[in-house]
Amino acid sequence: MNIKRLSTADAGFDQQLKDLLAFETAQDDQIDLVVANILRDVKNRGDVAVLEYTKKFDHLDVSGLSQLEIPKPELQAALDNLPPAQRDALKQAAERVRVYHEKQLMSSWSYTENDGTLLGQQVTSLDRVGLYVPGGKAAYPSSVLMNAIPAKVAGVQELIMVVPTPNGEKNQLVMAAAAVCGVDRVFCIGGAQAVAALAYGTETVPQVDKIVGPGNAYVAAAKRRVFGVVGIDMVAGPSEILVICDGKTNPDWIAMDLFSQAEHDELAQAILLSPDADFLDKVAASANRLVEEMPRKEIIRTSLESRGALIKVKDLEEAARIANYIAPEHLELSIDDPLAFSKKIKHAGAIFMGRDTCEALGDYCAGPNHVLPTSRTARFSSPLGVYDFQKRSSLIMVSPEGAQTLGKVAATLAYGEGLQAHAHSAEYRLKP
Amino acid sequence: MNIKRLSTADAGFDQQLKDLLAFETAQDDQIDLVVANILRDVKNRGDVAVLEYTKKFDHLDVSGLSQLEIPKPELQAALDNLPPAQRDALKQAAERVRVYHEKQLMSSWSYTENDGTLLGQQVTSLDRVGLYVPGGKAAYPSSVLMNAIPAKVAGVQELIMVVPTPNGEKNQLVMAAAAVCGVDRVFCIGGAQAVAALAYGTETVPQVDKIVGPGNAYVAAAKRRVFGVVGIDMVAGPSEILVICDGKTNPDWIAMDLFSQAEHDELAQAILLSPDADFLDKVAASANRLVEEMPRKEIIRTSLESRGALIKVKDLEEAARIANYIAPEHLELSIDDPLAFSKKIKHAGAIFMGRDTCEALGDYCAGPNHVLPTSRTARFSSPLGVYDFQKRSSLIMVSPEGAQTLGKVAATLAYGEGLQAHAHSAEYRLKP
Repeated sequence: MNIKRLSTADAGFDQQLKDLLAFETAQDDQIDLVVANILRDVKNRGDVAVLEYTKKFDHLDVSGLSQLEIPKPELQAALDNLPPAQRDALKQAAERVRVYHEKQLMSSWSYTENDGTLLGQQVTSLDRVGLYVPGGKAAYPSSVLMNAIPAKVAGVQELIMVVPTPNGEKNQLVMAAAAVCGVDRVFCIGGAQAVAALAYGTETVPQVDKIVGPGNAYVAAAKRRVFGVVGIDMVAGPSEILVICDGKTNPDWIAMDLFSQAEHDELAQAILLSPDADFLDKVAASANRLVEEMPRKEIIRTSLESRGALIKVKDLEEAARIANYIAPEHLELSIDDPLAFSKKIKHAGAIFMGRDTCEALGDYCAGPNHVLPTSRTARFSSPLGVYDFQKRSSLIMVSPEGAQTLGKVAATLAYGEGLQAHAHSAEYRLKP
Repeated sequence: MNIKRLSTADAGFDQQLKDLLAFETAQDDQIDLVVANILRDVKNRGDVAVLEYTKKFDHLDVSGLSQLEIPKPELQAALDNLPPAQRDALKQAAERVRVYHEKQLMSSWSYTENDGTLLGQQVTSLDRVGLYVPGGKAAYPSSVLMNAIPAKVAGVQELIMVVPTPNGEKNQLVMAAAAVCGVDRVFCIGGAQAVAALAYGTETVPQVDKIVGPGNAYVAAAKRRVFGVVGIDMVAGPSEILVICDGKTNPDWIAMDLFSQAEHDELAQAILLSPDADFLDKVAASANRLVEEMPRKEIIRTSLESRGALIKVKDLEEAARIANYIAPEHLELSIDDPLAFSKKIKHAGAIFMGRDTCEALGDYCAGPNHVLPTSRTARFSSPLGVYDFQKRSSLIMVSPEGAQTLGKVAATLAYGEGLQAHAHSAEYRLKP
């Protein structure tokens, strides 16, 4: 396996790094056109259109959309029928995710000024949320947990899951995860037609206020288009890991950590930074040896050879600077005193600290969310959280006394902007 | 003036309300195409492209983009040269906005579990933010304050403002507002080319991490397209106010409050709900009388006749239900004990409580932000705030002991998802 080797000492390293990270997220005009038509069609024709697309794409021929709803007892049965070890693992993971996310709950606040004017912020939850879950190979029960639990912790009243079931094949683990999280309703629909049903509502599917969850290019294009009608989460790019290691961790461990990212898909990106060139050699050797025993070795190989890199850095300070430039989705700090080092990190989705903290623990059960900003978007965005299902309203109650001082300031500025009704409205409250 | 009169008692009211609120935010394909070309061009050719578009659209012919940067002393001079009353009003407003927004600052947190595992969230600010300010008639200094101050409070290191100056005409109030807020750099560029320069960076304009601020349809389309490369704020629709009044406020005051929304533009929406039919008559009479003395009477008339409404409700309870459906940008509660009533409001951008609290006070100087969710998006989004310029990284430091329990859970779930490298990575940390 030929993983790219770079060194920050090389002339042209900055450009090499830029090229390595480059990932064209150009919108596909063809997909966009198909999606626009599906959205319009479902908006206009509701259930009938959703049924037609489901017949066409998922080969499911039913006479009414309600037949595609999975009754709650069926979800519970899926959970009950899991092998005990799997069921326990799912429940333990859900419980840890819930406990962590409860710390994210925002509260309302207000303060009163000397003249009696009250200012503040009222926090409320979204009423109804749609959760998209992909069908087929990318159907991950952990993803159901990570999207559903923050919504429920926030107080969302109704959580509606959609999941395509081509040819009627249902994923029992996904259904079990829905039961664990208390998902309220599940419809076996997918693609742009499911996004449209959630965004506009149909006779059977209620309109939601926000749609979250991963999906293919059609789902992503549909979410982008309905943004504004409903809220959406980030449109995610391929998953990434950046490992910073001082060279003192078992190289097999680090190689496997890189694999755990690379096995997601061919476009996933795994990069290792170390000041120890010998260690980079050792990790390369471990990777070559270990890849042979991996069931997903072809994906791992393609990912690491095309988008991976082992990078020699001058020191850990330089590694921190590069990490902040990359703003990785996952950052593993396999070094001494990682907590102190983490203060140097400004941009990362999640920071995994210490040699025992492999990213996989965070993917499933550590507690924090595994839906994280990709493709350098950690420069400006955050992990999915309870805060994505809460929102704020400003509170303003100006006292009669406060209206005298504020009214004059507002009127002066309003006249400056040529907005006389604004000025008059403020001046009406002034006492003669 | 013929403002629509509705009553919730009428058959078909729900549909009438829906029609009243309907606002087609369809993306204009022609604009989108023009914008896509400008974005691509600026991305590829940088400064040269920006200069060409600025020459074409703003009739400014300069040889280098640095000539379009306004030096800081010129901003300060604009502030110093304002009439004292205006300068004082601007400074007082800025100070109040700053104090309110400081309460929004998020802090990092973490907790340690019994086995020594640490979990938490590290909060950091964005590095660099772009602020779009429209030129011409919609150039509002208050908008500079409301966008710039939260960014600065959050700790954004560099705030870069762009503002088109067609034919070289600079708005002194906007420049003064930039000086008050400590905006770091100002470029006289606008349109999709300015958005592109901020999103991709050019030789002269640094790449930012997020772009905020209002703009025309081209700016909105450009922001929508660069979303993902950089963060953006909401794409705003026309401004709206919903007033709930028990009939005991001076009808002239309420009419003027409706005007203060309607005068923004013909598409602005002002709606009044009251259980008192006589009061609705009085407000209609006030509006007819007062509109004649308004400099912007044509805009007010068009807005109120085409999109405004006076609605008779059964009681205030019903008014609260309608308000939650509308999820208005601005909600005025001109009633007794508005603070108690505000608990019934789930969806609104800002809630103005009491007869003295006209919306205009909030637009300029009460303290809370005037950038608010429009077109029912308050169902899922919040006022612009400091939190829009901060972000979170998850912190995960699993102790050797914690890795034993979490490793087993993670491995079980990873095998269930067919991700063997994830499982191995967790199992490597298990002690034999």
